[in-house]
Parts: sequence; C-alpha cells; structure tokens
Amino acid sequence: MPLRMEKVVVVGVGLIGGSFALALRAAGAARRLVGIGRTEKTLREALDLRVVDEAGSSFATVAGADLVLLAVPVGQSRAALEAMAPHLSPHTIVTDAGSTKSDVVLAARAALPAGALSRFVPGHPIAGTEHSGPAAAFAELFQNRNVVLTPVAETDAAALATVRAAWLACGARVFEIAPEAHDRIFAAVSHLPHLLAFALVGQVANDPDAARLFSYAAGGFRDFTRIASSHPEMWRDICIANRGALLAELGRFQQELAALRSALQGSDGAALQAMFERARNARNRWIEQSRPEAADGARDRSC
Amino acid sequence: MPLRMEKVVVVGVGLIGGSFALALRAAGAARRLVGIGRTEKTLREALDLRVVDEAGSSFATVAGADLVLLAVPVGQSRAALEAMAPHLSPHTIVTDAGSTKSDVVLAARAALPAGALSRFVPGHPIAGTEHSGPAAAFAELFQNRNVVLTPVAETDAAALATVRAAWLACGARVFEIAPEAHDRIFAAVSHLPHLLAFALVGQVANDPDAARLFSYAAGGFRDFTRIASSHPEMWRDICIANRGALLAELGRFQQELAALRSALQGSDGAALQAMFERARNARNRWIEQSRPEAADGARDRSC
Repeated sequence: MPLRMEKVVVVGVGLIGGSFALALRAAGAARRLVGIGRTEKTLREALDLRVVDEAGSSFATVAGADLVLLAVPVGQSRAALEAMAPHLSPHTIVTDAGSTKSDVVLAARAALPAGALSRFVPGHPIAGTEHSGPAAAFAELFQNRNVVLTPVAETDAAALATVRAAWLACGARVFEIAPEAHDRIFAAVSHLPHLLAFALVGQVANDPDAARLFSYAAGGFRDFTRIASSHPEMWRDICIANRGALLAELGRFQQELAALRSALQGSDGAALQAMFERARNARNRWIEQSRPEAADGARDRSC
Repeated sequence: MPLRMEKVVVVGVGLIGGSFALALRAAGAARRLVGIGRTEKTLREALDLRVVDEAGSSFATVAGADLVLLAVPVGQSRAALEAMAPHLSPHTIVTDAGSTKSDVVLAARAALPAGALSRFVPGHPIAGTEHSGPAAAFAELFQNRNVVLTPVAETDAAALATVRAAWLACGARVFEIAPEAHDRIFAAVSHLPHLLAFALVGQVANDPDAARLFSYAAGGFRDFTRIASSHPEMWRDICIANRGALLAELGRFQQELAALRSALQGSDGAALQAMFERARNARNRWIEQSRPEAADGARDRSC
C-alpha cells in the first residue's frame, strides 16, 4: 500500500529537509508539506522555491502532523524536540536526519514523554553534498542512497514501518543498526575524514605562502578536500555529539601517522609501499563492489 | 614557429609518458615517437594501442633524439639517466616528469656529463589520474594543466625553450620555479594529502569490522580517498625523494590534529567551528578563483 500522508512537517528546510519534502511530494506521499525554519529568510527562500507548501511560524505547527522530520544540526536536536513536545498529536511520528545517533536518542529520551518517545524513530540518510540551504535541495538526493534507522527498545514497530516507508518513497534503501554501532562506523568513514580535510585546508590556508600553495593545488587536492566545504556548524555539532567515537578513531589515525613518520624517517621504502598497496587494493575492491551509482563520478556527492 | 621534432623518445610509456607521446602526435610536433618501457609487456601494450610508433629495445635508442622525456617513478631517475648518458647525441635535450625535483636535479648532476646536464630540463606536469599504464594515457591529459619547469644554474636557455614549447604543444601552461620551492609546495598540496588518504584507507581496511565500515562509506569517503588508488611504487618513490619537505608538512599536520584533539576533548565547539569555517572559506575562495576547468567536476582527475 503506497504511503499517503496528510501533513508532513520538516524542521529545517535546508539540503536534507528540503530534499525530503521535494522527494515526498514527487512520490505523492504527502498532501501538505509544512516547513519550520530557523530564520525567516531561509523559510521564505524554501517557500519561494516551492520546497515546502506552507511556512510554520512556530513549533506549534507540528500539531496534527502525520510525520515530522527533524533536519537541523544535531546540537539543536534536544531544544527542537523539547519545543515540539507539547504540540505533538497522539498519532504524530517524529524522525530525524542527524549524522550522529546516540546523542539524538539521549536527547529524545530527555525531551519527549513516553508516548511520543515510542513514536520517535532515529534516522540518518547517508546523503548530502557539500552545499547547504533550500536552494541546494533536490528531489532525487536520496535515490539509491542508504538510510540508516537506529530504533531503540522503546521504538514502536508501526512508527518504524512508517518512517521506513517514507524513505523508501524517497527512493532510498533502508537499513537498521544500533545507535552505538552507527556512531562508531560513521566516526571512521565520515567524521574522521571530514576532520582531516578541514585540518589539511586549514594548514595550507595558515601557511605564509598560502596563495602560491593554492595556485599549484590540483584535482587530487580538490577531491581530497571537497568535504572541507561542508557546513561548519553542522560539523561542529557532529564532532561534539560523537566525540567519544571520533576521539578513538582520531587516536588510531595519529598512530598511523606516527608509523608513516617512522617509515619516512628511516627511508623505509618497502614499508611505505606495503602500506600504499594495501590501501590501494582495499579501496579498489570497495569501488568495484559498490553499487554502480557509487562508482567514481561527479553525480554522487554524498558526504 | 611551431615545434617540429624529428625523433622523441619517451622513457616509461604509462599514463604520463604515453599521454605526452599522444599529445605531441596530435599537435604534429614529433615525427617519430619511440617508447622505452620497463617491461616487454607494457611496451607491447603501448605499441598495440599506438601510443608510440616504435619500441626501443634499450637505452641506446635515445641516440639521435631531439627530445627525451623521462617518465618513470622518481626513484629510477638516476639509473635511467646513467643508462642513457653514453648514448645521448650532442643536440639531445632531456626532460623529466617526476613529481619531485631536488632529487632529480641531484641525480642528473651525478649521472650526466656537463654538456648533457646543460640540456637537462627538470619538469613536473601537474596532471595525472589515479589510473596508470599505457591504456590510461590520452592526448588531452595536459590540456589547460600546469607544468612546472625547475631549471638550475647549468640549464641551457635554448633547451629550456624547447621543453617549454613541447609542453605548450600539449596544451599545458608552463611555469618556472626553483626545485626546492617546488618540492615544498607539492609536499603541502599533493604529497601530504596522498599520505593521509593512504593512511585513512589503511586504517579502515585494518579494522576488524572493515567490511561493514566500507559498506556504509559514501561519496565523501570516496572523493577523500580517490588518491589512495594511486600507484604505490610511484608514491613510495615520491615520499622517499621528498622526505625532508614531506616530514616537515607531516609534522605540521600532526600539530593540527593535536589541536583538534584538544578541542574535541574539551568539547570546545567554538574552536572547532572557527577551524572549520576558516577551512571552508579558504577552500571556497580557492575553488572560485581557480580556472573554470579546475572547478569541481568529474573530468579533472589530476593528482
């Protein structure tokens, strides 16, 4: 049975929230799409671009919604959940799109009464680009992308099924894992790379010879640092929210660099080549095994 | 006056050497293109693909050449220059395509007699992809790419002019800087990022949960690690050849990570956001100021 919701509220009408609204409309899965924005300007832009049908003036707008998607930097999750809690109808399902999950689960437990908590489904669409804001949103963003849901003991099965159906309607593939496993995985394959990309660009930008360094930077530098153009506030929140797992991965990376430094200092070509070969082989295997749309190419810009 | 050479020898018929041959042929700048390969198989492949017109069976093949391009991993530069030295004609100009320059200058000084040394023009085309071998070569690889020449005191002005003309014929832009400045710049914007990409993929590959980690890696990880699919032997040689400058940049990066670790440990969101904003702003300025063909896109895959 195709999903057909009467009212969907998107809190945060940027790249993720906006694309979710556009995708649900394109799928005919929602009749009314209402946006709540952090600023008047963003919400106006989302309206002008027809990303949402209506602008909600406050969190009271969630009243009567079938589904609410929380798509704000994760540091604001708790405040947003607290603000909407008094207005949630008994049937309203809430989900989120945060890149970290343990902290969002904690926030939901603190902010929501038991009934609403059972209808809260923590989620993370593995999609996005380095661009942000309503103008960056597009209906196809989630096509063939993975969405990870991290239900907990309290989560109601029917609420989980509805959120799953909503993401399927957006064209995504849906997986379920525990919040802690999620956070550990994404610390390694997403949060740490972002940190490294920000750090490298910062190092070049802080160099006294920065202009000349940038003038010779080429395609390798550009791709390596693409994620350093990501949203600073969003990434600040992710790093703080997932600091335990991220610090562990960062520590391992610092050990990797120490090993590379030793090999370089000793001009140990065999050790370097072995490390490089192992990495190249692993990456090439991953690229080959990935679904076709994950192969190298300009269109997949997910973060 | 258009460049018109009778005989050009390419030592190493892979991505760079092969593309140089194809570009010179396309420009009508060389009548005979002769390849010297490290293995029979590679040379045969280059002949079959018509990347070169003839296969040279030994370094004696350089005799009578107007121009020789040395396009092998930089660790082999000295041996190759020594092997060709006895066969170089008095008018033969030699250049190279190595990613490091101080070491190649040292190798040339050790391997070549004074006359040949004056006709040796150290160079570095800032182009390439993560692919290698003759099959990866294409005539347009150097179009609108930067080529850095690093002439030294001994370098003959006419030889420099010829090498410049050859790269211009390939569609490249040609710059001149000192070898030491070159090596410092590329340690920062190319060699260090490669090292970091190899290290990150290695870390994920070595994880007990590697298969699951890779299964959730997305576009950000893919772009960040693209350069970790680069040629291990070539990058081993670059790292060893440029270890002084690379160790200095690596040391600075280790300090950047230590600062990030402190900020994370202290949940210092303001410090993290300031670092991320600075990096994002610097990168976005660089992308805007870059020539159009350097803008984000799939076609520029230079390393």
